[in-house]
Amino acid sequence: MDPSITSPRLFVHAALGPGAGIVATPAQAHHLGTVLRRGPGDAVRLFNGADGEWSARIAALRRDRCELAVGARLRAQAPEPDLWLAFALLKRDATDLVAEKATELGVAALLPVITGRTQAARVNRERLEAIAIAAAEQSERLTVPLVAAPVTLAALLADWPAGRALVVAMERQGAPGVAPARGPAGLLIGPEGGFSAAELDLMGRHAFVVAASLGDRILRAETAAIVGLALMQAPAGV
Amino acid sequence: MDPSITSPRLFVHAALGPGAGIVATPAQAHHLGTVLRRGPGDAVRLFNGADGEWSARIAALRRDRCELAVGARLRAQAPEPDLWLAFALLKRDATDLVAEKATELGVAALLPVITGRTQAARVNRERLEAIAIAAAEQSERLTVPLVAAPVTLAALLADWPAGRALVVAMERQGAPGVAPARGPAGLLIGPEGGFSAAELDLMGRHAFVVAASLGDRILRAETAAIVGLALMQAPAGV
Repeated sequence: MDPSITSPRLFVHAALGPGAGIVATPAQAHHLGTVLRRGPGDAVRLFNGADGEWSARIAALRRDRCELAVGARLRAQAPEPDLWLAFALLKRDATDLVAEKATELGVAALLPVITGRTQAARVNRERLEAIAIAAAEQSERLTVPLVAAPVTLAALLADWPAGRALVVAMERQGAPGVAPARGPAGLLIGPEGGFSAAELDLMGRHAFVVAASLGDRILRAETAAIVGLALMQAPAGV
Repeated sequence: MDPSITSPRLFVHAALGPGAGIVATPAQAHHLGTVLRRGPGDAVRLFNGADGEWSARIAALRRDRCELAVGARLRAQAPEPDLWLAFALLKRDATDLVAEKATELGVAALLPVITGRTQAARVNRERLEAIAIAAAEQSERLTVPLVAAPVTLAALLADWPAGRALVVAMERQGAPGVAPARGPAGLLIGPEGGFSAAELDLMGRHAFVVAASLGDRILRAETAAIVGLALMQAPAGV
């Protein structure tokens, strides 16, 4: 494996440039020192969602305090998929899995949604953001997805931006398969019990809604999210 | 939702036919009575991988003993995808996730593989079989995938059946995207550290091996398995 991709990657909020000094978060310091057993002089990589990816060295590391000295730029910031994932809130483990896998698959935003059959109405956004950051660090992407506050399905539809398709995964409705996205798009995954008739009717009144099927099988909601994102990003012409 | 799909589904080993009496396993009895709070007279559905899906009623239920009376056939046995998943053994949670999601996605066989960079050499097959059965019950499929004993990569290749393609997910190798499978196929997902040069060379010597890319992003192995299976089963023409 290329050694340049084996050094730990950290997401930071500070601006990145040659010679910059960065203070890692206590959690990052703990991870580097205690979990990964790294120390002063060891290489890391940094990204902040805006300035690309930079090499850096650990300048000082003591328990939960770590200072990093930025070196050279490794990659310029580059466009990432303009794909959002809206999903009816699931139980905690499933929600965590969705946040992690959707981040690996490159989504720009995670939008938790409350529907009639949603089992949960709250979500710990800080927890989801931490999961998204960890997944972004591991997956080589240069951004971290936005984690939105939960909204009702009605609000999601009312506030959906013009010009962005919303692909809604529907079971047993005879919808065509999910097609690769062309342009800005979102995927909406419903709750385990499916959408209510009133919700299906409401969605049908919006021209940006595209009903789509993930196949004949019954998938758990978290699996449907992963499969739908994979299909929407399949290379055209496959 | 159609009420016929809300009754619990159980996988059984016994033959299924009109009027048959089936004894559930202690775990199934516990699940029906204690978790789902069902009792005598309540409906369930049964499948055994060979005789289709049948309606049944709980005839007697007492702690971990449950007798089921088979009624009418609901669905005939039907062909399922002829798709195998071979995967380098992962840590336990990731292996469990792969078994569950691959079963939801319809694979006929789960083949754990030992490679040079595999972190584990053992797998609890009974545990994986239980996960596969639970996922099959939940996902409406009519079979349970075979869970094979772990084999080395060399043995997997040496014993690979004639006429079956083996799509190998490779990162950063310039391979084309995963295409929908046409005919019997398998997907091979390597370990977190990737295949060694010697392993890549070994695979390259087999004509049934098809190198394929899951995209530019670095996916964790369990995500790669789900994404690869989704793409191999994407409807043709998408």
